[in-house]
Amino acid sequence: MKTRKKLRIALAGSGNVATHLARAIYASEHQLVQILSRNTQEARALANRYGAEAIDNAQTLDPALDILILALSDDALHTDYISNFPEQITICHTSGSVSMEVLKQYPRHGIFYPLQTFSKQKEVDFSEIPICLEANNPEVLQTLEQLAKNLSSRVYFLNSGQRKSLHLAAVFACNFTNLMYRIAEDLIGESDMDFDILRPLITETAAKVQEHLPGEVQTGPAARNDLKIINEHLKALEKHKDYKEIYQLLTEVIVRKRYI
Amino acid sequence: MKTRKKLRIALAGSGNVATHLARAIYASEHQLVQILSRNTQEARALANRYGAEAIDNAQTLDPALDILILALSDDALHTDYISNFPEQITICHTSGSVSMEVLKQYPRHGIFYPLQTFSKQKEVDFSEIPICLEANNPEVLQTLEQLAKNLSSRVYFLNSGQRKSLHLAAVFACNFTNLMYRIAEDLIGESDMDFDILRPLITETAAKVQEHLPGEVQTGPAARNDLKIINEHLKALEKHKDYKEIYQLLTEVIVRKRYI
Repeated sequence: MKTRKKLRIALAGSGNVATHLARAIYASEHQLVQILSRNTQEARALANRYGAEAIDNAQTLDPALDILILALSDDALHTDYISNFPEQITICHTSGSVSMEVLKQYPRHGIFYPLQTFSKQKEVDFSEIPICLEANNPEVLQTLEQLAKNLSSRVYFLNSGQRKSLHLAAVFACNFTNLMYRIAEDLIGESDMDFDILRPLITETAAKVQEHLPGEVQTGPAARNDLKIINEHLKALEKHKDYKEIYQLLTEVIVRKRYI
Repeated sequence: MKTRKKLRIALAGSGNVATHLARAIYASEHQLVQILSRNTQEARALANRYGAEAIDNAQTLDPALDILILALSDDALHTDYISNFPEQITICHTSGSVSMEVLKQYPRHGIFYPLQTFSKQKEVDFSEIPICLEANNPEVLQTLEQLAKNLSSRVYFLNSGQRKSLHLAAVFACNFTNLMYRIAEDLIGESDMDFDILRPLITETAAKVQEHLPGEVQTGPAARNDLKIINEHLKALEKHKDYKEIYQLLTEVIVRKRYI
C-alpha cells in the first residue's frame, strides 16, 4: 500500500477564512508551513499559534510546498497580487464567487471553497463544513481532495457554475436569513422584549430542515393563507415601510408556492 | 411551607400544539386529566398515550379541573365552540395572535402561548420553549405560572400588545427564514446539487445568533456593498422574477442598515 504523503501547505491571507483554515490544517495530519500576508502582525500571530512561519513576500515561499491556498478577499483575487507566485506551484483559492480562471497562468490550479459563515470570534467544527473542490487537472484535484478529506467529512466536487449557484443560494440561506433575524429583533425590541425570547425558535427552525426539506415544513399565516392575520400584520408594520414591503412580497411567494 | 398543589389539566384540541403540550404535561408533576376534541380518533390516540380520558363533549369536562387549555386554531377561537365551557373554569388559549378578549365571558381567563414551531413528526425539548403568559387576574396568572415553570425554564409575562409583536417577529424569524431555505434549495436543485450541502451553513447561521445579536454578525455581499457580486447574482436570477425581487429588496435593506 502506498503511504500517503504529508502535504506541506502555505496559506496566503490572515482574515476569517485563513484563520479557520490555519487552525484546521494545524489539527490535521498535514503541515502548515507558511502564512503569507501583507498584514505582518496578523500573519505572525497566526503563524505563532499554528507552528508556521510568517512571511510577507511571495519570493520567500518555500519551494517545496504542495499547495498554496489563497484565502483572500474576492477583490484581492482580481489584482496583480496573485500573479507573483512561482509558476510551478499548486495553487487554489477559497472564494465561492470568483472564477477559477483568475489562476489560469498557473498550470496547476484549483478551488478549495469551504461553505460556511466564518467569524473570528466563534470556533466552528471544521469536520462538518462542506468543502467544494474543482481543479484544472485530475492530479491537482487529487491533492486538494487529500487535504479536504482530512479536514472535513463533507467533500464535494463542483464545477464553476455549480459553485456560483451555491454561493448565491448561500446568500439566501445565510445572509438573508440573518436579516430576517434582525428584523425580528427590531420588532420585539420596540415592544420592550429581548432577542433572547426568539433564540429557541430560531434554533428549532434550522433544526427542522436538517431532517426535512424546507418545502415540507413551511408553516405560518402565509402557508395557511390566513388573510385575517396577514392583514393585521401588515397594519402593524405600517410605520416600517421596508419591513412591510418584505412581509408582503415574501407572503405572496409563500402563498403562490402552496399551489405548486 | 405550603405544599404545591398538583394541577389537574384538560386540553381542548388534538393538533400539533395539543400533542406537544400533552407530552410535556404528562412528563411534568401535574396531571393531564382529559383531552377534548371533535376529532375523537386523534383525541383517543393522545389520551391513551398520556394516561388521560378522551372526551368529545364539553359537558363531560371534569368539574374539578384546575386549568382548561384551548390548544385550538385561531379560527376555532373565533367560533361559538369556545362559549360552551363551565363558566367558573380557569381557561386559557395558546395562540400568539388571538386577543385574550375572546375568553372574556369567563371570569378566570388567560394566555398560555408557547413560542415554537411544532410539527407532529419532530419531538422538541419543551424545557427550552419560551412560554408567554397573560391573565385577567393575579390568581389565574399564578396558576398558569405554576404549570409553565414546571414545563419550561423560559417563562415570560407579556401583555397582549407584546404577544402580537412577538408573533409578528416570529413570522420573520421562522416562517420567512424557512422560505429563504426553500429558495436556496430551489437554486441549488437547478444545478443538480442536493440540499444537504447547505445544512451545516443553516445550522451555523442560527448558532451564531445564539451568542450574538443578528446586527453584529451580518455578512455577505450586501453587508460589504459588493456591487460586482450583487449584480452577478441579480443576473443569475433573471429567470426567477420573484426571487430576483426578493434579492433586490433584502439587499437594499441590508445596505441601508450599514449606515444606521
